[in-house]
Amino acid sequence: MTTTSTCIDKTMPDPDLLNPSDTFIHRHIGPSDADVATMLNELGYSSLDALSDAVVPESIRMDKPLNLGDKRGEHELLEQLKTMAEKNKIARSCIGMGYHDTITPPVILRNILENPGWYTQYTPYQAEIAQGRLEALLNFQTMVADLTGLSISNSSLLDEGTAAAEAMAMCWGAARRKKNTFFIDERCHPQTINVVQTRATSMGINLVIGKWEEVEINDDLCGVLVQYPDTYGSIADPEALQQLADRLHEAKSLLVAATDLLALTLIKPPGEWGTDIAIGSAQRFGVPMGGGGPHAAFMSCKQEFVRRMPGRIVGVSKDSHGNNAYRLAIQTREQHIKRERATSNICTAQVLLAIMASMYAVYHGPEGLKRIAQRVHALTSMLFDALQDAGYGVHDDTTNYKGPYFDTITVPTSQAQSIAKDASARGINVRAFAQDRVSISLDETTTHTDVLAILDLFGAPINNQQPNSDLPDVARSSDFLTHPVFNTYHSETELLRYINRLQSRDLSLTTSMIPLGSCTMKLNGTSEMLPVTWPEFARMHPFAPPEQQEGYAELCSDLEKWLAEITGFAAVSLQPNAGSQGEYAGLLAIRGYHESRGDVGPDKQRDVCLIPVSAHGTNPASAVIAGFQVVAVACDDHGNIDIEDLRAKAKQHEDKLGALMITYPSTHGVFEPGVREICQIVHDHGGQVYMDGANMNAQVGLTSPGLIGADVCHLNLHKTFCIPHGGGGPGMGPIGVAEHLAPFLPGNPLAGMGTGCGDQGSGEDNPKSEIRNPKSPVGPVSAAPNGSAAILPISWVYIALMGGQGLKRATQVAILNANYMANRLRDHYPVLYTGQNNTVAHEFIIDCRQFKKSAGVEIDDIAKRLMDYGFHAPTMSFPVPGTLMIEPTESESKAELDRLVDALISIRGEIQKIEDGEYDREDNVLKNAPHTAAAVSADTWPHTYSRELAAYPAPWTRDHKFWPHVGRIDNPYGDRNLFCTCVPMET
Amino acid sequence: MTTTSTCIDKTMPDPDLLNPSDTFIHRHIGPSDADVATMLNELGYSSLDALSDAVVPESIRMDKPLNLGDKRGEHELLEQLKTMAEKNKIARSCIGMGYHDTITPPVILRNILENPGWYTQYTPYQAEIAQGRLEALLNFQTMVADLTGLSISNSSLLDEGTAAAEAMAMCWGAARRKKNTFFIDERCHPQTINVVQTRATSMGINLVIGKWEEVEINDDLCGVLVQYPDTYGSIADPEALQQLADRLHEAKSLLVAATDLLALTLIKPPGEWGTDIAIGSAQRFGVPMGGGGPHAAFMSCKQEFVRRMPGRIVGVSKDSHGNNAYRLAIQTREQHIKRERATSNICTAQVLLAIMASMYAVYHGPEGLKRIAQRVHALTSMLFDALQDAGYGVHDDTTNYKGPYFDTITVPTSQAQSIAKDASARGINVRAFAQDRVSISLDETTTHTDVLAILDLFGAPINNQQPNSDLPDVARSSDFLTHPVFNTYHSETELLRYINRLQSRDLSLTTSMIPLGSCTMKLNGTSEMLPVTWPEFARMHPFAPPEQQEGYAELCSDLEKWLAEITGFAAVSLQPNAGSQGEYAGLLAIRGYHESRGDVGPDKQRDVCLIPVSAHGTNPASAVIAGFQVVAVACDDHGNIDIEDLRAKAKQHEDKLGALMITYPSTHGVFEPGVREICQIVHDHGGQVYMDGANMNAQVGLTSPGLIGADVCHLNLHKTFCIPHGGGGPGMGPIGVAEHLAPFLPGNPLAGMGTGCGDQGSGEDNPKSEIRNPKSPVGPVSAAPNGSAAILPISWVYIALMGGQGLKRATQVAILNANYMANRLRDHYPVLYTGQNNTVAHEFIIDCRQFKKSAGVEIDDIAKRLMDYGFHAPTMSFPVPGTLMIEPTESESKAELDRLVDALISIRGEIQKIEDGEYDREDNVLKNAPHTAAAVSADTWPHTYSRELAAYPAPWTRDHKFWPHVGRIDNPYGDRNLFCTCVPMET
Repeated sequence: MTTTSTCIDKTMPDPDLLNPSDTFIHRHIGPSDADVATMLNELGYSSLDALSDAVVPESIRMDKPLNLGDKRGEHELLEQLKTMAEKNKIARSCIGMGYHDTITPPVILRNILENPGWYTQYTPYQAEIAQGRLEALLNFQTMVADLTGLSISNSSLLDEGTAAAEAMAMCWGAARRKKNTFFIDERCHPQTINVVQTRATSMGINLVIGKWEEVEINDDLCGVLVQYPDTYGSIADPEALQQLADRLHEAKSLLVAATDLLALTLIKPPGEWGTDIAIGSAQRFGVPMGGGGPHAAFMSCKQEFVRRMPGRIVGVSKDSHGNNAYRLAIQTREQHIKRERATSNICTAQVLLAIMASMYAVYHGPEGLKRIAQRVHALTSMLFDALQDAGYGVHDDTTNYKGPYFDTITVPTSQAQSIAKDASARGINVRAFAQDRVSISLDETTTHTDVLAILDLFGAPINNQQPNSDLPDVARSSDFLTHPVFNTYHSETELLRYINRLQSRDLSLTTSMIPLGSCTMKLNGTSEMLPVTWPEFARMHPFAPPEQQEGYAELCSDLEKWLAEITGFAAVSLQPNAGSQGEYAGLLAIRGYHESRGDVGPDKQRDVCLIPVSAHGTNPASAVIAGFQVVAVACDDHGNIDIEDLRAKAKQHEDKLGALMITYPSTHGVFEPGVREICQIVHDHGGQVYMDGANMNAQVGLTSPGLIGADVCHLNLHKTFCIPHGGGGPGMGPIGVAEHLAPFLPGNPLAGMGTGCGDQGSGEDNPKSEIRNPKSPVGPVSAAPNGSAAILPISWVYIALMGGQGLKRATQVAILNANYMANRLRDHYPVLYTGQNNTVAHEFIIDCRQFKKSAGVEIDDIAKRLMDYGFHAPTMSFPVPGTLMIEPTESESKAELDRLVDALISIRGEIQKIEDGEYDREDNVLKNAPHTAAAVSADTWPHTYSRELAAYPAPWTRDHKFWPHVGRIDNPYGDRNLFCTCVPMET
Repeated sequence: MTTTSTCIDKTMPDPDLLNPSDTFIHRHIGPSDADVATMLNELGYSSLDALSDAVVPESIRMDKPLNLGDKRGEHELLEQLKTMAEKNKIARSCIGMGYHDTITPPVILRNILENPGWYTQYTPYQAEIAQGRLEALLNFQTMVADLTGLSISNSSLLDEGTAAAEAMAMCWGAARRKKNTFFIDERCHPQTINVVQTRATSMGINLVIGKWEEVEINDDLCGVLVQYPDTYGSIADPEALQQLADRLHEAKSLLVAATDLLALTLIKPPGEWGTDIAIGSAQRFGVPMGGGGPHAAFMSCKQEFVRRMPGRIVGVSKDSHGNNAYRLAIQTREQHIKRERATSNICTAQVLLAIMASMYAVYHGPEGLKRIAQRVHALTSMLFDALQDAGYGVHDDTTNYKGPYFDTITVPTSQAQSIAKDASARGINVRAFAQDRVSISLDETTTHTDVLAILDLFGAPINNQQPNSDLPDVARSSDFLTHPVFNTYHSETELLRYINRLQSRDLSLTTSMIPLGSCTMKLNGTSEMLPVTWPEFARMHPFAPPEQQEGYAELCSDLEKWLAEITGFAAVSLQPNAGSQGEYAGLLAIRGYHESRGDVGPDKQRDVCLIPVSAHGTNPASAVIAGFQVVAVACDDHGNIDIEDLRAKAKQHEDKLGALMITYPSTHGVFEPGVREICQIVHDHGGQVYMDGANMNAQVGLTSPGLIGADVCHLNLHKTFCIPHGGGGPGMGPIGVAEHLAPFLPGNPLAGMGTGCGDQGSGEDNPKSEIRNPKSPVGPVSAAPNGSAAILPISWVYIALMGGQGLKRATQVAILNANYMANRLRDHYPVLYTGQNNTVAHEFIIDCRQFKKSAGVEIDDIAKRLMDYGFHAPTMSFPVPGTLMIEPTESESKAELDRLVDALISIRGEIQKIEDGEYDREDNVLKNAPHTAAAVSADTWPHTYSRELAAYPAPWTRDHKFWPHVGRIDNPYGDRNLFCTCVPMET
């Protein structure tokens, strides 16, 4: 990293004078210097350093500044990044493999993907102020269910590869873990096979790869996964597949289909030929390829499997006024995942991308989608016919690639590599399989000119071949997307207003702070966001040749280096595309390490994972799917790990100790002073320490996982490193590891395949590989080599703009903000768990349990009442039921902190009035919160308190009022009456 | 223009099959094909052609399709435009001349300039639903007033050149038109001198150009304009200027200063040395140069001249609840400009850009702005010192360029042209004056490296020259921007929320239709808007060498050609940057033509301009400032021009007849059948026909000004051609002319100056010129050669996407939509003025005058009540007092039209209830409209009708309610208590 703007002469009297005018640190950090001084003064500290010395145990303090260069100006840095981006060369992509170029309707690009009103939203746990995105997600679910022909869909998964792995786990779970074989067809996308393979290995499932026509259906088989259309482009006969399904069902085994939403507008959907579970990617519905992601994968299934489905499901319920209202259904499946009984560790989604894909369907409607599909197929048919006429044995029945096709065809040729190279030189990427075939995928952006250019590669002329839009043998006859929402907003004006209407129902960071403990809702700076939609980053196929991806390579290399510096580790992998995936990958690295030392194998199983009882549910779930047995470790009254219990458990499992998972600062918001000792105990007993990076925002520049003694940690780039939450995704969960674990970072068997991409599993070809960690004994955990590459520029820009000094100051102010708030709130609410010098880290917990008895007030009532004050509630009941965990982050100004504190104090006063009998115990401002505009302006007002008290409890609500769109939502009603697609108009 | 996507084989059976999936016509046009059929059916027409044949008189119908190519896909077209844009080469601009590169804070870029929530707003005439932008404009006014040291500012003007011309007109008006000489200092920017010259000529003012130190102050002198700092960079001695001011004031003459806002953070402001009026450009406050615009020019003045100030002024008043509320002050100055007594024809502003500039000041605050200025000055001082040390006589006292400087210095050198050429080759543009000097302007984006590169051009080394941020001789000592709004929102999060808060108070096209008659509020498509902020277009200096502007040249050439085709004219000028400027330029062309024929001169004055009484007030105002005498022509009962009166007036003024100004279809929304005859009469009597293009949206593809017989017309690109209204600007007003007028299009004496730009007025140099129409006898009307070049891509994309067929269909649907609405409303309101077959054109007038008597309801009451229904009122009381003029445009869907019709019918029902005595005559839903959320949810409800009736008068308001931020605003109160800067916090 170069230093600050230009070469300033060292002899200058005031070097600051010539700093760029747009340095970023004071834009990112909320409190001004004067505010910081005031706040420090109130807390009794003379400086930020004095405060952080008081908070962070001396034994783990970083003693030198982060080596990340100086702060820089935004303008200059973006110019530098643009130069780097331009090293990416965007070719016309015909690679396929589940990634297709697509046209993002500009109205969706600008008003969703580039709109902080959408991308700074949090996960819709507080449904009353999230009705907009919940409606959009319900549209997504309806779209997926309709197109796949199945009755229920979740609201997105991470990528097609992990969705396939999740489907396998579902099959395994549905068989009550008693059938231990899963079959995957060799004509699935190779990256899907790889990801499933990784998961099967860690979960101990026996994976068989072969042709589905030849599958052996026996008692141990829990499921079969087929791709439809397959990776060669062939569409299998639905009748044959129906027969397969019947046979599987007879054997109490399940059929899973990986499929393509655009193709399904024309061909018979999997739900109509017996599929139990369908998965795939919604990327080509308007979401840029982005070098691999983020995209919304999908999963739909038969109704009977709904409670086994991973991820989130949006459902319809009623609010307190009896109106329809959306919320996350059967939430126990999700936020509080099943810990030790988990078959999935998924606790996020790709909300922003799912919303984009759903809006794409809303904009085009069923007829528009069909037209796009017909056009793509028509162009493909011309290509097919011309190649066939020129003597190529396209889709020869003697090969794997035969029969009907939709958008992809495979051409046998002995010149595969030279054609691919020639194509690449002409700006076209085809997929070359070893030496003997090339496949070509067309998409929405393909033009007739492109088809001619491709034919020219093969020396095949166009001879009056006619475009054909029909697929008679496999044609779909059923309707889809018949709901009015898909048949109304087809002009740009109408869609714009629909988007705007939904947006106005959702509270985001553009409205007020979202003080989610452990979720770090900080500024997502515009300069960080701008590069995401630059075409150089957005239009890259993840398996484009490496020489076209040099911009990404440089970006990733910088980021890996910087994150290694920040974490104090030797190596970083950017592949895991969610925190949960990071945990999984980190544990796999530990497992791989033990294996390499003979500590996992027939003789020995270092497979015990110690996890404190206070851990987030994802930790044990990840441990389980990574093949560990979870052993709980107690916590003491201060919320810290009970070191003696840890010592005892470590001793007890000495021979089997694989890992400890620990969050630092603790999930209680405390810098545990004994953390080094804890790490030492684990190491002394042969284990490795996994650190959950959820709380990295309290560490950066002050300490690091490496310093503390951890061996691996994941980083939630969507928390500490400014990737926005997108309303519940995307996230990114890279992992850093100490040197001895570096060989066990996730592999990339398909990355950098030269002029195209190989496949695996058929046994015919071996992937040629020249990439980072290709031979890792740990397979890939994500479909794309660099996970969700398109959002990595966000963290790159953040780190580069802040520099080492800025990042440290951010951490210090995050800690200051939390301590300032805790200090102001202490007289009104008990602050649970403090660390040394009575400080908290970057977040803290206030106790509300006592109000249940004193006033009949539950934590939900406080959360909903906060909406009336214009705030999103802090984290509720985690890690301690009945409490609120508040994390302000460094980006919130003192004024905003004071507003939230004032709101909480005011609510405490309202509770007091209930306690005092001044307010009715049942009919009060908390129990009836949130109050909608419709309720407070209704002709009748049935309450014992006033309308104004309900609606305007604080002065700022007079200046700017955020109105919840619905009243309190009845969750049990929705779960009892589960309904997860668009509501018919008549209701 | 090339044809549709790629070379589709002519033998194909269904060529539509291979059309791009993202063609635009059905996105732009609101009603679906099915809706169009339904609407036509209701009106009794079999097709759109049948309807337009019924509406448009046969004699003027276009008989062949527009030759504009076919519709195209958005994606493909944007790629083509990107290629064109890349022909613009962006150099580091050191040209200065009032245009400086600047850093648009990304949060402002994305959330204002690129945000339809801001850019699709209309002019804030309905102030209750425009409080957000009115507050931002008040901030702008406060910023300008504070920085210039004057007490009052308007809310922006078009550009610095026209602002100077306006200031001259103010001085002339202030002297009651009795002092006929105006003096302009030769060290003003050359384009300013040119624009003032044009205006002085047409208004008959004697313009003297010279050095202000030598001005002859006599009885005929109405004012003096100086530039501070001047175009060479020199800052005149404030004490000497104060003496000038004193002498002028003694002679009852005024002093005008053209100045620079950034410099004013460091140097003594004009208001502190006796200036009466200050003008300039706020461009460098975060608004991209954009090849010349749009930017916000400003004007501030002493309080005593407020009623003479052109443009809009935002003022503070009270609403019906006694709260502060903003609105346009002393509106009679503005929308209803002074017709025949006008000294200005300005009726727009540059709202969007003024808001950006104000937010730039809000974001940086006074200290931040000062820091930017100090940095720019420090870099300039290093440049200055190093050049001086190297022996260059920089700011030699013997030259025009001497004394203190801020950001610009002028270097005498015999190598001027070769240095400029060399600079250009290195990617730096300097300003070369003929052969003997070079001037260099630095700006916020300049780096130390840039300074070194510039010095290298002169062979001047850096020898330890120290940066100096002080300007001791001219230093400012007074505070500025002390209001909290400029001292609070300095973190990105805080500014984002402030922007979002203001935005939420304003109704825009993202909420609902804005049916402004004659303002054509149609879709501003995202694909049209995207290129505006591409750096290739955004970062171009208007006087950059032509070889760097080839992208703009191609764009402008296309657009001129297409607009000529559309208007049926021979030539087009894109220079006028507002409709009013277009009128002015068009009339100047007519004047120039007459002059060239000896019809204007000592012997003969063809200076009578006939204008129908129904004309918009701008028409006579433009005529007056273009040097015409206005003679009114009567209209008949149908709103048409009274042909017999016209014939009589033409005859009466036969020798003096210069022009007729006519709007077509008429301002009453009717295709007058006699229009050809009207044109003929004028021509027969020696006059020329000027057509006001306000209603072009009813003509495109069906008829044209050329066909009708006009000689010149202006086009409001911000109406018919999709440039958004931006909340009240920018606009663009290109003119098209018949062949005989082409030589009289506005000139561009400075455009295309090679490697730099010459100056004028000093008599030392003659501009070298190689540009379009450089020798026009008519001078320039705008500061920049292509007006607001940066927004021309909007219209280019619109026309290219629609093609000839699409544009025609748009017109037809605009007419259909209007007739459909008129037909539905006819039973409830009288529809005034219809044309042949009882049709209306693209807009129509409903009469509400009768309700005054029947129910005490005035037009304002209906307009404000519409807000409760979620709508912006149609045009009120123009052209007929007490009526509403509705223009739906083609972009509104049938559903939206029906909603508005339903709202109006519902309001008619409410009026009926007053008429019937069911509702109180004083206390009713109309008189008290609009109803705020605070009012309908207040503890007390004093009204005789219900809260729900007030707030939710229509079902859709339950689904989505737009709440006016304030109650009915008291305009007279605000004008009596005029207050036009930010309100102190205590009030």
